[in-house]
Amino acid sequence: MNVLGVHLLLELKECNPKLLDDLDYIRSAMLRAAHDVGVHVIGESFHRFSPQGVTGILSIAESHISIHTWPEYGYAAADVFTCGSALKPAKAAQILIELLESKSPDIKEVRRGMLPLVAAR
Amino acid sequence: MNVLGVHLLLELKECNPKLLDDLDYIRSAMLRAAHDVGVHVIGESFHRFSPQGVTGILSIAESHISIHTWPEYGYAAADVFTCGSALKPAKAAQILIELLESKSPDIKEVRRGMLPLVAAR
Repeated sequence: MNVLGVHLLLELKECNPKLLDDLDYIRSAMLRAAHDVGVHVIGESFHRFSPQGVTGILSIAESHISIHTWPEYGYAAADVFTCGSALKPAKAAQILIELLESKSPDIKEVRRGMLPLVAAR
Repeated sequence: MNVLGVHLLLELKECNPKLLDDLDYIRSAMLRAAHDVGVHVIGESFHRFSPQGVTGILSIAESHISIHTWPEYGYAAADVFTCGSALKPAKAAQILIELLESKSPDIKEVRRGMLPLVAAR
């Protein structure tokens, strides 16, 4: 591995709007994704907005997983940022896509921390 | 504005390593950036790792600000994700660059939530 981390930016379109407005559901989906890829949750922050929308952030020992939802557009912006080559962020992304029932997901991968010293390892 | 949010991914290289390992300093830098651009903090999670490194996440009403640091490389991966056209995420990014004393910062901008309904507004 020649980078410190992999950051997946998920554009989750055409989700189930009802699920996007359900804080408990969003939280359990994120914890499920974290658990299934073996990352370690070290903190969390969840909030439901009025009249709609949820923000959820899991701080993980390996970086973070976040979701911000816009039920009115059936859209969620999710991030899965992990460091460590043993992890599979794409698997966590897939779990979120399935659990939020996104019919039109898009994933952009950004490599974080491409540093000479890391690359030389 | 024809997108829901702007997400700045900051590659902060050649930072002051001492500052990157100081949880209180990282937290105050992030709160300063949030305050100076007028976003509203609704939650936070901070953690210092052993032997080194800090993770900090501010959940804001307008999305999130996060930092993960690797003092051993003088590097931090920071994110400033804001929704709402009145905000200036680039200003928050600049504050973080200055406060972490990054001599080689790189900023990538990603537009989040480019949706037909939003674009038609």
